[in-house]
Amino acid sequence: MNTFGKNLRLTTFGESHGKAMGGILDGMPGGVKIDMDVILRETARRRPGQSHLVTARNEKDIPELLSGLTDDMVTLGTPIGFIVRNADQRSGDYGEMAQLYRPNHADFTYDMRYGLHEARGGGRASARETLNWVIGGAIARQLPCMQGISVNAKVSSIGGVKGSAEELAAVVEEAMKRGDSVGGVVECTIKGVPAGIGNPVFGKLHAQLAQAMMSINAAKGFEYGDGFAAASMYGTQHADIFTSQEGHITTKTNHSGGIQGGISNGMPIVFRVAFKPTPTLLRDIETVDKDGNEKILKGKGRHDPCVALRAVPVVEAMAILVLADNLL
Amino acid sequence: MNTFGKNLRLTTFGESHGKAMGGILDGMPGGVKIDMDVILRETARRRPGQSHLVTARNEKDIPELLSGLTDDMVTLGTPIGFIVRNADQRSGDYGEMAQLYRPNHADFTYDMRYGLHEARGGGRASARETLNWVIGGAIARQLPCMQGISVNAKVSSIGGVKGSAEELAAVVEEAMKRGDSVGGVVECTIKGVPAGIGNPVFGKLHAQLAQAMMSINAAKGFEYGDGFAAASMYGTQHADIFTSQEGHITTKTNHSGGIQGGISNGMPIVFRVAFKPTPTLLRDIETVDKDGNEKILKGKGRHDPCVALRAVPVVEAMAILVLADNLL
Amino acid sequence: MNTFGKNLRLTTFGESHGKAMGGILDGMPGGVKIDMDVILRETARRRPGQSHLVTARNEKDIPELLSGLTDDMVTLGTPIGFIVRNADQRSGDYGEMAQLYRPNHADFTYDMRYGLHEARGGGRASARETLNWVIGGAIARQLPCMQGISVNAKVSSIGGVKGSAEELAAVVEEAMKRGDSVGGVVECTIKGVPAGIGNPVFGKLHAQLAQAMMSINAAKGFEYGDGFAAASMYGTQHADIFTSQEGHITTKTNHSGGIQGGISNGMPIVFRVAFKPTPTLLRDIETVDKDGNEKILKGKGRHDPCVALRAVPVVEAMAILVLADNLL
Amino acid sequence: MNTFGKNLRLTTFGESHGKAMGGILDGMPGGVKIDMDVILRETARRRPGQSHLVTARNEKDIPELLSGLTDDMVTLGTPIGFIVRNADQRSGDYGEMAQLYRPNHADFTYDMRYGLHEARGGGRASARETLNWVIGGAIARQLPCMQGISVNAKVSSIGGVKGSAEELAAVVEEAMKRGDSVGGVVECTIKGVPAGIGNPVFGKLHAQLAQAMMSINAAKGFEYGDGFAAASMYGTQHADIFTSQEGHITTKTNHSGGIQGGISNGMPIVFRVAFKPTPTLLRDIETVDKDGNEKILKGKGRHDPCVALRAVPVVEAMAILVLADNLL
Repeated sequence: MNTFGKNLRLTTFGESHGKAMGGILDGMPGGVKIDMDVILRETARRRPGQSHLVTARNEKDIPELLSGLTDDMVTLGTPIGFIVRNADQRSGDYGEMAQLYRPNHADFTYDMRYGLHEARGGGRASARETLNWVIGGAIARQLPCMQGISVNAKVSSIGGVKGSAEELAAVVEEAMKRGDSVGGVVECTIKGVPAGIGNPVFGKLHAQLAQAMMSINAAKGFEYGDGFAAASMYGTQHADIFTSQEGHITTKTNHSGGIQGGISNGMPIVFRVAFKPTPTLLRDIETVDKDGNEKILKGKGRHDPCVALRAVPVVEAMAILVLADNLL
Repeated sequence: MNTFGKNLRLTTFGESHGKAMGGILDGMPGGVKIDMDVILRETARRRPGQSHLVTARNEKDIPELLSGLTDDMVTLGTPIGFIVRNADQRSGDYGEMAQLYRPNHADFTYDMRYGLHEARGGGRASARETLNWVIGGAIARQLPCMQGISVNAKVSSIGGVKGSAEELAAVVEEAMKRGDSVGGVVECTIKGVPAGIGNPVFGKLHAQLAQAMMSINAAKGFEYGDGFAAASMYGTQHADIFTSQEGHITTKTNHSGGIQGGISNGMPIVFRVAFKPTPTLLRDIETVDKDGNEKILKGKGRHDPCVALRAVPVVEAMAILVLADNLL
Repeated sequence: MNTFGKNLRLTTFGESHGKAMGGILDGMPGGVKIDMDVILRETARRRPGQSHLVTARNEKDIPELLSGLTDDMVTLGTPIGFIVRNADQRSGDYGEMAQLYRPNHADFTYDMRYGLHEARGGGRASARETLNWVIGGAIARQLPCMQGISVNAKVSSIGGVKGSAEELAAVVEEAMKRGDSVGGVVECTIKGVPAGIGNPVFGKLHAQLAQAMMSINAAKGFEYGDGFAAASMYGTQHADIFTSQEGHITTKTNHSGGIQGGISNGMPIVFRVAFKPTPTLLRDIETVDKDGNEKILKGKGRHDPCVALRAVPVVEAMAILVLADNLL
Repeated sequence: MNTFGKNLRLTTFGESHGKAMGGILDGMPGGVKIDMDVILRETARRRPGQSHLVTARNEKDIPELLSGLTDDMVTLGTPIGFIVRNADQRSGDYGEMAQLYRPNHADFTYDMRYGLHEARGGGRASARETLNWVIGGAIARQLPCMQGISVNAKVSSIGGVKGSAEELAAVVEEAMKRGDSVGGVVECTIKGVPAGIGNPVFGKLHAQLAQAMMSINAAKGFEYGDGFAAASMYGTQHADIFTSQEGHITTKTNHSGGIQGGISNGMPIVFRVAFKPTPTLLRDIETVDKDGNEKILKGKGRHDPCVALRAVPVVEAMAILVLADNLL
């Protein structure tokens, strides 16, 4: 339940306001030189507090790698254990929330599932867990089998608006001013994956990607290739006609999104993930406490108005973990 | 790779034009009375040849249950093995295709993955595999923990058209006349699931559903609750405000689609699956053979113009397998 | 629970007196020519009724392979489903036992575990389940990675007596005359496994073999190399001194039994499995019924006086499944 | 490969001379009060340096629990991450060994498996890994389902000598004087396990125990109940006759060792594990280097003359993990 992958397995732990986050990446082959700067670059990308558009919470997020590496940072083939201390634990921010269910948060469902929830910051439901995933992905990105493969995600729309970074930022700012949040879509394009990766039946490459992406906090939808638009198309419109180019077979179009029958066909893999608006708002909202009494939840705390913005490196990390798992 | 589930595991086998399909359902508790009529009803729902809108291939599809049951059809708690003989193996239909890659089919990717593909009817990539899933789901549907839970899927749109069964049928018929196929969306509503089902992190209930649905042939997208529309919404629009009704806590709206933080909240679980148009057409289409030579693929064979129509009982079966796995 | 292996997975079903035994072997690569005669030879080796020393129950035990193979018996890389009909179901033999707990049988523990047991012949606890394993092993034996590897098991002692086949047979005959049964040890020697197979920590090769062998009915102990005798030795006695022979490194002795630190070292892998005497006797024995009333269990039925004799091909099959799982 | 268990999963990391050992215990239910003293007591039991009979290496071995617990040490139902810093890393001790293969150690097989080995102290092959297991077991021991169950292991023989603690100590001391090591047997008795725990076929309780015990460093054999002695017995000798005592069914004897057909029968579970003599000796020994050149390995370093002595708490910890996994 806290393990992802088969050949390359990431097992994680950590509550957002506990002592530390951390994980074990098991299955890395030996002899791979790991560049710590790549890990720091990726964790920096997802770190909050980088601009006025994301939460002001400030953590250094410097992972400590505890095993699986020589002093020269070469993998031993043994599991890589890592931890990141939670430096900034202002749990008081969450104190008065402890008895109130925040709408669209996991507070209520955790109570139903476990009989209690870790009130301070959402426990395992917090997006801080994705820090572990980004670290795992940043290590896996350095595998020999991943060289020549590019994984690039970007926010393709916010609040229904497609456009330049400035236009998207304007939508977020406008929502922030009103103490509101806004949803968005992240699109990921993977180039360089050879044909033949994935499995038929239950191990379809796109089913693995779907599970990975839907594990990200606030994800509400996944589609690849033409996705939901394909449901409005005719077969003659959607057909990717095969052609021969310089001795190898490819397709003229990429309606399929790089995967056919669950297996990569050598074309770019393209998928999109829909993220809902952050449920925590900076304005008051009606709710109930554990006994069902109606209450007003005061808007405060440190939160992102648009979780899609911060999801970009997480989408990449999870895509890398899926690919590495299939390529190893 | 051919096994689905953790507590209730369905492992399957069978090529569409081989001797038999079959599977093993492991994890059923003992003492459950199994009604064979339920299994036959569900397999009949997915069976081809029922109307002029679906393929004319006609198979009895009568499963034989080989183990795990007393003579009185009560489960023993041991694995239930089942097979369905493939009665109708007109492999000649597929003979001339053997050297041609059918666009949007798995022929090419199978060749890349395995070095060969089972030419006759698509092998494991054929939608006939879903017969095994429907049998597994029809057995799991009879578990005590599934009583009181209703799982209902329906085609909600075809070719972009939403409407009555007649209107949807008209879209399919129009495509058929032109030898074309058309995509569609299946929507599934699950009622009666208690709050607290699912897991946080990698075992989120919607991530499990996403993986299950994206395993179905021709699926291109999955969304739950507001889905992709949530990416165009503000937090204030998307909030499901908690309220207390007759002593238990529920929400006023269901933007979340019955799942929050990966765990059911007691509201109806609602999700949609996008299906592409069937790739096999009844008209000629350009393609290449294994050596990359340009060829014309003649349209023939027995195929469904709208795979979404036949996916309905499969979506239900997979949803049931996911739920039963979590409820056991 | 009914699945064995990771890369090569055998999932099985079947009660000894139900309709059929069967299984699914998943993970076989494509392109492997399968010789049905090898399968029939191995199932014949474990079949009862071959001599006066083993049970008179007579079943043809001809497996039917239902999938995963071309018409020419070449693997497709897809799961191989197989069944064996239970031809000889003289369930009346077991009728009067239904209410009595047979000593050292699983009747009582099944009742405690499941609330009921499949009275006719022991259900899943019957040694007939091992037919599935022998079929799986006979297919796996034909993998390219298994060529050059010999797996040979033999009964090394019966009732504490070591000696020739005639001497061992005499011990069994003597026990039979008295309506008694007798235990034995099976020793297995595997040659040709390259150095470097297995995993440290929880995937140790000998731990995998131990689990596999202790899964065989009536197994009471497992040891490899010097085994329990090593517990009586000094380090200087037990050391396998390394030496260099014709350019490659080997050891002068094989106290380790071919495995060091959980990984093969290139020497023959040698292990032994202790089997208890068959619990079913041909003489009357005291017991209780389900309500705890003291009863006399009449000796009858068809059973082997020495289960170790029939375990030989099963030990080989399980060893092959473990090796193939690690070599794939 | 570094994960043990299904419902309660322990995933571990750490090289013996790296920065830290550690693990993640996943599957603990919420609401369990954890007593840190129990963890410290168990890690102290396995810690080296406690008497002149065990290695002089001295580490505090104080685990830090990083997640999964409230400030009051009550489990949250989320994974418990823990680490133990390696305080004493005298890697110089191992420097000159780096090019020599130590007999019966995993140096050679690691080289064959991974192409390199972590020379300093054996890497993952070191018995220091068992510290992680003892921590996992000490947490699991505190589960509600484990209350009423006693798990007690002891050294039952050393060098073939059975007797009092003094007599066993004398055997070890005599071996130490000669710079030699000696093997031993650990016997474990588990009382209070209810009837009905375990699974038939591949999940037999004794097969799980066998795999667990054979994962412990230096283990060469496993047996339960009469074990290898059963192979020398007749069925009439080995039969555990059922009887009714105070309204519940039990057996008059316990040849079966508390498990029948893979499922507990309510009697004490009794098993034994054979440990070979520690391969590292304090005297010179012949060996080869990586190029096959004959060399003399100088005896030095800090090692236990009898690994069976230190295995006692490890045997208990692994037995607890197996039981908890089955009871949850």
